[in-house]
Amino acid sequence: MNKEISVVIAGPRGKMGREAVKMVEGTKGLTLAAVIDRKFEGQKLADIEGFSSDAMIYTDADQCFTSVKPDVLVDLTTPETGYAHAKAALINDVRPVIGTTGFSSQELEELKQLSSDKKLGTIIAPNFAIGAILMMKFSQMAAKYFEDVEIIEMHHDQKLDAPSGTGLKTAEMIKEQRNSKQQGHPDEKETVTGARGGDIDGIRIHSVRLPGLVAHQQVMFGGDGQLLTIKHDSHDRGSFMTGVRLCIESVIDLEELIYGVENIID
Amino acid sequence: MNKEISVVIAGPRGKMGREAVKMVEGTKGLTLAAVIDRKFEGQKLADIEGFSSDAMIYTDADQCFTSVKPDVLVDLTTPETGYAHAKAALINDVRPVIGTTGFSSQELEELKQLSSDKKLGTIIAPNFAIGAILMMKFSQMAAKYFEDVEIIEMHHDQKLDAPSGTGLKTAEMIKEQRNSKQQGHPDEKETVTGARGGDIDGIRIHSVRLPGLVAHQQVMFGGDGQLLTIKHDSHDRGSFMTGVRLCIESVIDLEELIYGVENIID
Amino acid sequence: MNKEISVVIAGPRGKMGREAVKMVEGTKGLTLAAVIDRKFEGQKLADIEGFSSDAMIYTDADQCFTSVKPDVLVDLTTPETGYAHAKAALINDVRPVIGTTGFSSQELEELKQLSSDKKLGTIIAPNFAIGAILMMKFSQMAAKYFEDVEIIEMHHDQKLDAPSGTGLKTAEMIKEQRNSKQQGHPDEKETVTGARGGDIDGIRIHSVRLPGLVAHQQVMFGGDGQLLTIKHDSHDRGSFMTGVRLCIESVIDLEELIYGVENIID
Amino acid sequence: MNKEISVVIAGPRGKMGREAVKMVEGTKGLTLAAVIDRKFEGQKLADIEGFSSDAMIYTDADQCFTSVKPDVLVDLTTPETGYAHAKAALINDVRPVIGTTGFSSQELEELKQLSSDKKLGTIIAPNFAIGAILMMKFSQMAAKYFEDVEIIEMHHDQKLDAPSGTGLKTAEMIKEQRNSKQQGHPDEKETVTGARGGDIDGIRIHSVRLPGLVAHQQVMFGGDGQLLTIKHDSHDRGSFMTGVRLCIESVIDLEELIYGVENIID
Repeated sequence: MNKEISVVIAGPRGKMGREAVKMVEGTKGLTLAAVIDRKFEGQKLADIEGFSSDAMIYTDADQCFTSVKPDVLVDLTTPETGYAHAKAALINDVRPVIGTTGFSSQELEELKQLSSDKKLGTIIAPNFAIGAILMMKFSQMAAKYFEDVEIIEMHHDQKLDAPSGTGLKTAEMIKEQRNSKQQGHPDEKETVTGARGGDIDGIRIHSVRLPGLVAHQQVMFGGDGQLLTIKHDSHDRGSFMTGVRLCIESVIDLEELIYGVENIID
Repeated sequence: MNKEISVVIAGPRGKMGREAVKMVEGTKGLTLAAVIDRKFEGQKLADIEGFSSDAMIYTDADQCFTSVKPDVLVDLTTPETGYAHAKAALINDVRPVIGTTGFSSQELEELKQLSSDKKLGTIIAPNFAIGAILMMKFSQMAAKYFEDVEIIEMHHDQKLDAPSGTGLKTAEMIKEQRNSKQQGHPDEKETVTGARGGDIDGIRIHSVRLPGLVAHQQVMFGGDGQLLTIKHDSHDRGSFMTGVRLCIESVIDLEELIYGVENIID
Repeated sequence: MNKEISVVIAGPRGKMGREAVKMVEGTKGLTLAAVIDRKFEGQKLADIEGFSSDAMIYTDADQCFTSVKPDVLVDLTTPETGYAHAKAALINDVRPVIGTTGFSSQELEELKQLSSDKKLGTIIAPNFAIGAILMMKFSQMAAKYFEDVEIIEMHHDQKLDAPSGTGLKTAEMIKEQRNSKQQGHPDEKETVTGARGGDIDGIRIHSVRLPGLVAHQQVMFGGDGQLLTIKHDSHDRGSFMTGVRLCIESVIDLEELIYGVENIID
Repeated sequence: MNKEISVVIAGPRGKMGREAVKMVEGTKGLTLAAVIDRKFEGQKLADIEGFSSDAMIYTDADQCFTSVKPDVLVDLTTPETGYAHAKAALINDVRPVIGTTGFSSQELEELKQLSSDKKLGTIIAPNFAIGAILMMKFSQMAAKYFEDVEIIEMHHDQKLDAPSGTGLKTAEMIKEQRNSKQQGHPDEKETVTGARGGDIDGIRIHSVRLPGLVAHQQVMFGGDGQLLTIKHDSHDRGSFMTGVRLCIESVIDLEELIYGVENIID
């Protein structure tokens, strides 16, 4: 990070976009060069309520890239737009950081090829929450040494699905690493059905739902006389910005496409 | 507690008994006057391996009470013996603290009558773990102000039953206080069966079993933007001694039978 | 709570006031009868941005009380205005719930007298956060049985003072109850100054400051092989509304002035 | 781990040694081939009280290695004896796992050379507690992404030093990774001295001491709206055996000396 990184943000008026504008403007080493929006061509971001930035608004991605020549595009729009923007960026020698989950494998393959051909980094990030990603990564690492593990995920009581997506993904990642094991005592008995939680390959998962909770998860590993707990608490959307910043700073040094923020963490 | 309390312990060689001997000898204001055992009549406790106390051993309770005239009997034997000892104690003007759960209602009624007639305190304690009792009591109090609550109890993986007895009792105590409520979102859906835990009158209870755990429980109350958690961790049998001590010090001032340590806590 | 309680809110446009309007309108058994504001006389609350209530706005408290004849006034304004409103309410047979800390002892005395003369309940609440109040109350109760206690309070890193006000108040409340004790080993040694935290009458208090935290406190009691922890997490201003509601519902049955929400909790 | 690993344990009668004997005998894939002790030459381990193993006792390490030809030596004696045993083991084509901290750099260098020359693995382990090692390793990794961190270590109240050795080592490992930063608000003020804890390069460290605690540490990383916590609880000496087992299984595949269990974890 010796020189300033020039960033264009697509989708600045969404919830994530607004946070990203704030983050880029508040981070030493990053400059907000312009934004891409569906409307307001030719205006400044400061003309829109809630913004104070002087960054120019473009509605055409190509035109934005050729005029501004940024280092990095951060796209926080939809899968369709994100795909088009990523392609346009690479063609114009801009490194894309795309925050969506909805790409087809054909689209991914195409971007991967383009990225390699251009020797330009690309990051596709289904999840920017770096704390959650570290929790999952550490859990997977710990599973190598502790085969007994339970997951407790806790969310507000408006959440419909149990377990949470992060809970399921954590269990999957642990499963890849540890030897399959049916935990608890072989003869254990539930006197109240469900007390022992959900069972994923022998790993028990518990979903707590209470008003006053936001989004929390703890992964507990038990061994001989010891316990290792990895916990993540997330309070608001701002919790994704550490991940966005990491992607911007990392994509500069890449020469290929990386899928998933966990793969730029070491 | 102005004057020294003289204590006799029945069952000094059991696990609880050994801890009680240590506790009484180590507590200012308490004196170990003698012990009651099935054998070793006329010997000193110090003659038995693992003890250093000079307390005399009696095998007959009546004889012990008339010779030693203690203030309090702490009985850590079996229900049958405990009942006989309690009766003998009251008749001999000694206040009994009995650590058993197995009395019939007729036996309880008889001791209650005897206690009142003699105006001598008696405490029957199914559970001496004062931290656990406070946890349950506070949970019941909190349930008056927060109707959403989940219980997570955690034990070593050799435990057979789920939920734990303390978990079930806590749920019962909360149930008495709060208005019945089906918690969580009305449309919530378990994609892994059991994830949302056991359901006791709408209260969710989760049982974690891992090696490295001993005996732990947390009760979580959720409200508008806040969470109140009451947690108890118990590591060893020593955790009952605070309760035994409290009973000894409390029974002195009572003039009737009290059932349950929670009823001498205010 | 057999009949609907009619409520007037003073200060509806403040942060607390807005939450209170929402809470009263969303609570079964409570009706928002009117509001008192410095301006907008004769308009409806719905005429102000962000509100949808049909409640009428009054600028004069006396006129409001005589026209609307509510059961309860909830005042979330300033100490000066709160005092005038409380007095006017009692004179007009309305029970005041006043959310301020700034009354002089003379003002308090006067309201106390008026409240008793009228046999009308009054609640003065320096703090409506019922979760925090329960945490402090439970801590004080637990201190009777566990003399070893440490407090860890955790806040965002923009907080200037350490320890927090709640932390200090908790220590004071515990101090009232327990026998003074210098905790830790008599010969313990800090190799890094401050590691053992602040010392309040032998109670250790630790202040954690991190971005990502909001307002949290845990009080830990340690005994023989056991630990009792009481924890409160507060995420937003909404966490005060359970306390406001409790005050509205409680003041109806009172016939005197109560200072502090902790004194209506049993 | 396709074939059974044959293990010799030196120091079987110490606290760690006893646990190690139990662990090796209870682990599939490991065989206890013999033990090395200062006395009881020619007897079986089962002849000593508290053991049931048929393993032979040797007082001479060389003789043991040449007779038994084990794969691995686990040494849980003293630094002096450990050094002699390690050397003898390597000379006899046995891989040493040595659980001591007291080697001089000259001794270490010599063993390192011998290990490389023989192309035989050696592990020197100052700390076998794998849970604690993972906690430190994960903390160091997380520090790369979160620059704000506080450490809370909690121990029984008989501990003399604050902070704990693990707490200090964790702070050192984090320091290596993160950019130095003075945490908390620049204008923060302690109204009770020590409340903000100890300061190690801007990292705050808090030491809690209570009866009922054993050995616990949590490392908290705070960021934008999120918190990542890594916690280790240790209850007894058994908590080291996962680490001993890992070393035995790992040293087989090594061809050089490794210092520190953290360096065989990936």
